[in-house]
Amino acid sequence: MDISTLLGLLFAVGLLFYSLFAGSDGDIVGTFLDVPSVMMVIGGSIFTTMLSCRFEKFLAFATITKNAFFNKGRKPAELIRQVVQLADVARREGILSLQNTITEIPDPFLANGLQMVVDGTDADTVKQVLDMEIESIDQRHSEGRSVPDIMAKYAPAFGMIGTLIGLVVMLKNMDDPTKIGPGMAIALLTTMYGAVVANVFCLPIVDKLTVKHDEEMLYLDVAKAGILGLQAGDNPRMLEMKLAVFLSPKQRATLESTEKA
Amino acid sequence: MDISTLLGLLFAVGLLFYSLFAGSDGDIVGTFLDVPSVMMVIGGSIFTTMLSCRFEKFLAFATITKNAFFNKGRKPAELIRQVVQLADVARREGILSLQNTITEIPDPFLANGLQMVVDGTDADTVKQVLDMEIESIDQRHSEGRSVPDIMAKYAPAFGMIGTLIGLVVMLKNMDDPTKIGPGMAIALLTTMYGAVVANVFCLPIVDKLTVKHDEEMLYLDVAKAGILGLQAGDNPRMLEMKLAVFLSPKQRATLESTEKA
Amino acid sequence: MDISTLLGLLFAVGLLFYSLFAGSDGDIVGTFLDVPSVMMVIGGSIFTTMLSCRFEKFLAFATITKNAFFNKGRKPAELIRQVVQLADVARREGILSLQNTITEIPDPFLANGLQMVVDGTDADTVKQVLDMEIESIDQRHSEGRSVPDIMAKYAPAFGMIGTLIGLVVMLKNMDDPTKIGPGMAIALLTTMYGAVVANVFCLPIVDKLTVKHDEEMLYLDVAKAGILGLQAGDNPRMLEMKLAVFLSPKQRATLESTEKA
Amino acid sequence: MDISTLLGLLFAVGLLFYSLFAGSDGDIVGTFLDVPSVMMVIGGSIFTTMLSCRFEKFLAFATITKNAFFNKGRKPAELIRQVVQLADVARREGILSLQNTITEIPDPFLANGLQMVVDGTDADTVKQVLDMEIESIDQRHSEGRSVPDIMAKYAPAFGMIGTLIGLVVMLKNMDDPTKIGPGMAIALLTTMYGAVVANVFCLPIVDKLTVKHDEEMLYLDVAKAGILGLQAGDNPRMLEMKLAVFLSPKQRATLESTEKA
Amino acid sequence: MDISTLLGLLFAVGLLFYSLFAGSDGDIVGTFLDVPSVMMVIGGSIFTTMLSCRFEKFLAFATITKNAFFNKGRKPAELIRQVVQLADVARREGILSLQNTITEIPDPFLANGLQMVVDGTDADTVKQVLDMEIESIDQRHSEGRSVPDIMAKYAPAFGMIGTLIGLVVMLKNMDDPTKIGPGMAIALLTTMYGAVVANVFCLPIVDKLTVKHDEEMLYLDVAKAGILGLQAGDNPRMLEMKLAVFLSPKQRATLESTEKA
Repeated sequence: MDISTLLGLLFAVGLLFYSLFAGSDGDIVGTFLDVPSVMMVIGGSIFTTMLSCRFEKFLAFATITKNAFFNKGRKPAELIRQVVQLADVARREGILSLQNTITEIPDPFLANGLQMVVDGTDADTVKQVLDMEIESIDQRHSEGRSVPDIMAKYAPAFGMIGTLIGLVVMLKNMDDPTKIGPGMAIALLTTMYGAVVANVFCLPIVDKLTVKHDEEMLYLDVAKAGILGLQAGDNPRMLEMKLAVFLSPKQRATLESTEKA
Repeated sequence: MDISTLLGLLFAVGLLFYSLFAGSDGDIVGTFLDVPSVMMVIGGSIFTTMLSCRFEKFLAFATITKNAFFNKGRKPAELIRQVVQLADVARREGILSLQNTITEIPDPFLANGLQMVVDGTDADTVKQVLDMEIESIDQRHSEGRSVPDIMAKYAPAFGMIGTLIGLVVMLKNMDDPTKIGPGMAIALLTTMYGAVVANVFCLPIVDKLTVKHDEEMLYLDVAKAGILGLQAGDNPRMLEMKLAVFLSPKQRATLESTEKA
Repeated sequence: MDISTLLGLLFAVGLLFYSLFAGSDGDIVGTFLDVPSVMMVIGGSIFTTMLSCRFEKFLAFATITKNAFFNKGRKPAELIRQVVQLADVARREGILSLQNTITEIPDPFLANGLQMVVDGTDADTVKQVLDMEIESIDQRHSEGRSVPDIMAKYAPAFGMIGTLIGLVVMLKNMDDPTKIGPGMAIALLTTMYGAVVANVFCLPIVDKLTVKHDEEMLYLDVAKAGILGLQAGDNPRMLEMKLAVFLSPKQRATLESTEKA
Repeated sequence: MDISTLLGLLFAVGLLFYSLFAGSDGDIVGTFLDVPSVMMVIGGSIFTTMLSCRFEKFLAFATITKNAFFNKGRKPAELIRQVVQLADVARREGILSLQNTITEIPDPFLANGLQMVVDGTDADTVKQVLDMEIESIDQRHSEGRSVPDIMAKYAPAFGMIGTLIGLVVMLKNMDDPTKIGPGMAIALLTTMYGAVVANVFCLPIVDKLTVKHDEEMLYLDVAKAGILGLQAGDNPRMLEMKLAVFLSPKQRATLESTEKA
Repeated sequence: MDISTLLGLLFAVGLLFYSLFAGSDGDIVGTFLDVPSVMMVIGGSIFTTMLSCRFEKFLAFATITKNAFFNKGRKPAELIRQVVQLADVARREGILSLQNTITEIPDPFLANGLQMVVDGTDADTVKQVLDMEIESIDQRHSEGRSVPDIMAKYAPAFGMIGTLIGLVVMLKNMDDPTKIGPGMAIALLTTMYGAVVANVFCLPIVDKLTVKHDEEMLYLDVAKAGILGLQAGDNPRMLEMKLAVFLSPKQRATLESTEKA
């Protein structure tokens, strides 16, 4: 987890607890904890999400969340340097000379793609296989994102159902006016829980996964363009220029400065 | 129904009833059941959905729901093994030798596609017919999903209309203040029913149907790619590699381990 | 109107009136009718829709609604039988022999398309004209749907504006507390009217029109594929197989059973 | 402005004022006008829209609105007759004979297109230039629509902010219970203003502009198809048939009846 | 910042403060400032956005906002004049003669594109590189826009959470009725803060960035069409006509009048 994500999480949850603490004069548990309400909202949204999703995806939720926060983004600038180097080697020593290097490449997408090139697979087939692989990764990511997304939809719904149940109960028993306030307070707790679950936990995870996904897609697009250019026997300088187009001006500057160094 | 879906359903509905039970000190029926309100919300959303949909689709609702929960997902990994085997046979004994095997294939999509290949239909026509079939299945699924989807839209609307009717009645007759609370409680019941129908029943069915649909589409894409590769006389190893691209890394690992075994 | 649509409409409106009747102890008019509120919501949404739409479309609203409920869906299975028969005739007696049959075809889309084929128009032009015709029908339908759709948007908005006007009036004159209740009841009536107009009338019409539109599009796709196949001189059996792909498995079974009969 | 639009506007605004008049026993200004609230909602949404838009677009708002209501829709049926006439002339006297007629065509899109044809520009370039022009008109229209669209988004938001400010002020000073009602009435006024600005003014303008835009796009599509057909030397009868496809059955009937006359 | 944007900002914020000032009889701080509420809404939405975004993007927020307001829009009309001039030179002195001019072009997109043309890169590669560059700029812009967009989503959510916390606290301690009003006032403050942050700050920035983005995309489309036309050796007059199509009629008039001058 990069330091900024950690700080964002700490401060967001910290602020929430500070508000609860300040509001309740320190008695957070007594004021804001109501076990049946917690069960209703947290349990209800978890079990409904379980109903709505493929079960393996649901179980993979922990992994997905971990990836959202701990997985290091892949650096397309590094990839470009690597591909240009490989293109240099291929130009000088022939494309078959890449065979040994491939086994040392940790990224399976790049390794598989280069293997096909070395095996002499024709360009159309390589492009088709890489496109299908990218599409398939795209779809798996969007499935993974659907778990926190669905939970963010059901948590506020169960919060509202809980509040309606609480209000009905309270309104049916209005004999003692002194109980109206606390009754309504408890009724509102479920709505609050639902809003917190959706907005402080689920939706930021969805947003973060979307960002990671976009980074990965960019990386894969660069890798695909690199593999195809390498197969086409592109001039390494030309290839670098083509791939650099995927980078932001800032990343491109880094790429150039490292090169000159 | 896989065990997880069953548990999800049981626990979600269980939690709801627990909340109702706890809220009403055990008298769920007396506190939360109001027959005219139930009729208004359940009946209103059912009849409006009946108005909005094609009638056969509406009647098929039970079947659709059953499919959402009981239909076993199809396994693309098994399909790949089957197709690779068929490609092996076709390579060794000629494509006509598949004729006998086809009649034993339970899946009509795969069987029809292979039949066309054996009949010597040209590749473009095969691709076109398979594409049209996939598109047509896609459309039938989205029509099926529309029944719970439309109901999820009308249930909260009828809940709100019911609550407004209840509030108007209550506000017109405010002579006896002791009746205000119970009157409002009953008015709120329809909103609660609408939220429960939409969020605990209809929307999870829609979500589940979407998941099943995505699985089926993946399966059909694999089958189509397999049939076309088989017709093109692809090398079985090459074909397997092409089809494996559709699988997640985990499924792919399973595919490979089973093969080696 | 098929019997199910009639029942859906009767029961949905019936339930609504039952609720109003039960709520008001039978005095629906006295409790729920407020003429200025009706004028505000019904009139406001009608006139704003009139402002928002092309005038002829607005006037065509009655026709559109009638079509939504009374127009018989077209049966693609029947169309397929008809096209296959025509293909049989064309194969045996030449395509020019269709000239007499064309004049008896009631559907102008099919008739025009076949006329072009008989006239010897080249295949690309036929396809282009049919595509343009389908697109143009698609657009006219979506324009027709826009009238109830826009009304469904403005009715709740005018309901809310009416309620806000009512609340402001009531709050300004709170001298007599006994008038608060009835004042608020009347204020809420406009919101109720808006919700009923949108959810019981406009939106089901939009949904029904969408269903009819999808059916019509399927029919036109079948007709187009049939005309083009007939022009290409497709084998009638092959053509039937191609067109049958558009049908659901159930419709396909009907098609086959009728044939064998 | 066609008579129907005028009536729609008059009646919608009339009904609104009737409601305000009836609600306030005739004292509209005293009951419903609060100058700071008007400034907050109208001013706030205007200035935020000014912030959000390109300035020239913002200034063009008056023109855009005028066009929405006063601009006569263009008639594709007339255009078709004109194009068929031109095709007739081109067929008899050669395409160069159109030169004189072009200068008399008021519509710049048609005139420019025909000029290119007369100049002997090749068909691909003509198609490309016309496509780019259509896309560019499409984009300018959607920019024009964005002004009332953005205003319809900010008006209710400023209405809500105003109401919240009013409620906070009222709740802080609850010493005198007789002031609660009127205070809340004024607080609610901003919400009402926001709803009226959005739903009675901005959104109908957006809807109307969309309708006009669709009409214009249809007109341009017909013109493009006409220019290209004319260049390709299409038979005038054939060209008319091709273009008639863009019309609704009713417009087509008009086209045919006028011709025969 | 053009004068209109400045005025829009000043007046929108000015109106808001005027409302706060008028509402609180001048004591804005005492009535509307509640430090924990500010921390909850501003802090909560900032930290959650930090969690949701790529960190560099989050840090770039200030730059993004500055660009939204201060960056001068690029003028496509000027670009067209420049490209037509270059085409003139290229036609007279050969395409290599552009080499010196390129180094003086400040815009890197145009300079890089022309450099490729001068270097003799083939037309397909040039088109491909320019397309990839445009797509990559498109994506970077949409990422930049996502920061204020995400903040506009979380600010109202934290506002609602804050209000719910405040209401629960207030309802639990209803012993002293005189404290109900002020307690609720403070509870509502967070909702107000959330609405102001979203609607007065974040959303107008998003809208403005969208406008700037559309302008930039138009500029890049013109530049791309110009570079490709120049490479194809288009006649300068023809090229100007092609590019002028991207302009609005008004801009086109300016272009023509400047030319004649």
